[in-house]
Amino acid sequence: MIYLDNAATSWPKPESVYQMVDKVMRQIGANPGRSGHTMAIEAGRLVQETRELAAALFAIPHPSQVVFTLNVTDSLNLALKGLLQPGDHVITSSMEHNAMARPLEALRKNGVTVTKVATSPVNGISLREIQNAIQANTKLIAITHASNVTGTLNPIGEIGKIAKEFGVAFLVDCAQTAGVFPINVQEMGIDLLAFPGHKSLLGCQGVGGLYVHKGITLKTLREGGTGSHSESLEQPDELPERYESGTLNTSGIAGLGAGIRYIMETGMEKIKQREGKLTNLLVAGLAKIPGVVLYGPPLGQQRAAVVSFNLEQISANELCMILDKSFQIAVRPGLHCAPDAHRVLGTLQGGTIRISPGYFTTEEEIETCLQAITAIGKELVEEMK
Amino acid sequence: MIYLDNAATSWPKPESVYQMVDKVMRQIGANPGRSGHTMAIEAGRLVQETRELAAALFAIPHPSQVVFTLNVTDSLNLALKGLLQPGDHVITSSMEHNAMARPLEALRKNGVTVTKVATSPVNGISLREIQNAIQANTKLIAITHASNVTGTLNPIGEIGKIAKEFGVAFLVDCAQTAGVFPINVQEMGIDLLAFPGHKSLLGCQGVGGLYVHKGITLKTLREGGTGSHSESLEQPDELPERYESGTLNTSGIAGLGAGIRYIMETGMEKIKQREGKLTNLLVAGLAKIPGVVLYGPPLGQQRAAVVSFNLEQISANELCMILDKSFQIAVRPGLHCAPDAHRVLGTLQGGTIRISPGYFTTEEEIETCLQAITAIGKELVEEMK
Repeated sequence: MIYLDNAATSWPKPESVYQMVDKVMRQIGANPGRSGHTMAIEAGRLVQETRELAAALFAIPHPSQVVFTLNVTDSLNLALKGLLQPGDHVITSSMEHNAMARPLEALRKNGVTVTKVATSPVNGISLREIQNAIQANTKLIAITHASNVTGTLNPIGEIGKIAKEFGVAFLVDCAQTAGVFPINVQEMGIDLLAFPGHKSLLGCQGVGGLYVHKGITLKTLREGGTGSHSESLEQPDELPERYESGTLNTSGIAGLGAGIRYIMETGMEKIKQREGKLTNLLVAGLAKIPGVVLYGPPLGQQRAAVVSFNLEQISANELCMILDKSFQIAVRPGLHCAPDAHRVLGTLQGGTIRISPGYFTTEEEIETCLQAITAIGKELVEEMK
Repeated sequence: MIYLDNAATSWPKPESVYQMVDKVMRQIGANPGRSGHTMAIEAGRLVQETRELAAALFAIPHPSQVVFTLNVTDSLNLALKGLLQPGDHVITSSMEHNAMARPLEALRKNGVTVTKVATSPVNGISLREIQNAIQANTKLIAITHASNVTGTLNPIGEIGKIAKEFGVAFLVDCAQTAGVFPINVQEMGIDLLAFPGHKSLLGCQGVGGLYVHKGITLKTLREGGTGSHSESLEQPDELPERYESGTLNTSGIAGLGAGIRYIMETGMEKIKQREGKLTNLLVAGLAKIPGVVLYGPPLGQQRAAVVSFNLEQISANELCMILDKSFQIAVRPGLHCAPDAHRVLGTLQGGTIRISPGYFTTEEEIETCLQAITAIGKELVEEMK
């Protein structure tokens, strides 16, 4: 099988990730941060190690500012609902994933005003438009680093500068970039960084994270046992416990640690180059196929490894089904949980076909996929005659 | 090492659980419920299988009523905050874990009134007291099945009858009983059942669940991508997607499925008998050690496999440290994230030592633990002379 759905979940993982998860479950199965026995302490140490690795990766000042969650959606909900109150104003892009757009819609119904700044599928959000959207009650700019539909990058470093200038908090969803594109929360002025464990960070599903700047105190979404201040019915103030109630996914977090270690050892620049090469190969190849309509940045422009297109002769769903059944190629059709992005692209009806290579994808796999799409296109043209 | 901290996280797991998690990560690493390719469908099927197994275990009418969460704390937060509004009244016990007590405290500050019914560490909550506590605005009875400090069982079947009689919803936290004690949500009148994956259900950390009765619609705690109704910014109404935003922990959920399958194949009655025997051995042995103060139900009374005690000569923390360092025995000291329970027991200062055997614990391990505690007690008495 050729797996080209890495924007949903990366696969395969480095061997060290599988081995770490198995080892932790078999040998270090205790509850981290509870009890004081050797195995519990060892479990806690593994969690702490991943915190330190994530902090190092994103230049987060202190590992305790890394909060572990269920997934990036959980992280975004905590950031948005923890920060925004009725009467607040938030600025976002018009191409967000539902992980950002749906909690914002829930907040909007609860008295938060939301400005969706028009965003170009080619160039991303306009800095001037963001600046123009800032109001006296603007509390937050909340934006994805890269579109999960088109791979279009937003200039987060520049947005961070605007946020600092106007004293507005800055939340970045790096679901499609963490582990590939450099993110430095201090240099980029990011106050809240939401990341998934199971995409380009190469960990497994069931773990996400949120960086919380020390100047920000969020309302909690979940309260419960934290293994600290157990005498109190109040949620503790300390990070990370304040936002980490209940038992953590120790094996998953340790697996994420192994994923981040793999990235650091490989070198993020090398990963970025590799994914960029595969993406260019894909875009160039698709552009040559008759009937292909490509969305997003043109060939050669830097983007996340996500390519959306349609083949005029056929619906996205059908094409993906044929790729799966007849060619054993896994890609994703539809709306990719991002209706706003599809409104911008004009593809809200049938969506797009999304192909997303990963670091372990080969050139041959891309070529095979391109040949398959070419063949399907030709056959359809023949049939129509 | 002798692991007697199963009330925190069960360990070891059945071999089939380890193997399932590893297999899913290596072979079925796609995103469930997204895309339509073979591997994504296979991942979705695994999640659905665990839903069906959990539904069968708890006599839940339809698998879609099983919602997967991060942990039982996440489940309880969803149930409590999803149901209760300012002005509502909720009845709970005076011996709850912070996973119940802390979200209730947060709700109390937000205009929900909370009655904590006096609860006996020996006999659990009084049905008459619950009945007396019901008011016109009582919306929910929320209670643990068994205390995580003393193992004391609450009569949930009887409470369910009262809840039905008065038209009040009924939430049960079965963190210490799921997989060992029979729970039938229909016969017991349970409307919301919160369960952890990593305790007696023998799955790994990072998965919890919540059963939601079809007559109940909860506000969502998290909105985001659900792989359904992607065109809409509104969270879908359908279960389970309404409450399951973002990527699920597929390998963890499949591992939980393997754990439930192991329980069903072994027979829950056999597991209950085994844990009961180990617990009785423990209680009988502890009662004979000079200086031991036992809390909770007396010998022979049915209870969850959780035993709390103190040794007069020494603090809980010190005793556990000696058991760990000198005897390689893992037990848990302190407040066990349940300050209310310790208020009832009069142990809010130093907490208790908690020993919790699991299905895989042997009689020899219990004996070795008892001998170690006896030896420590003797040595301390000698030192004091």
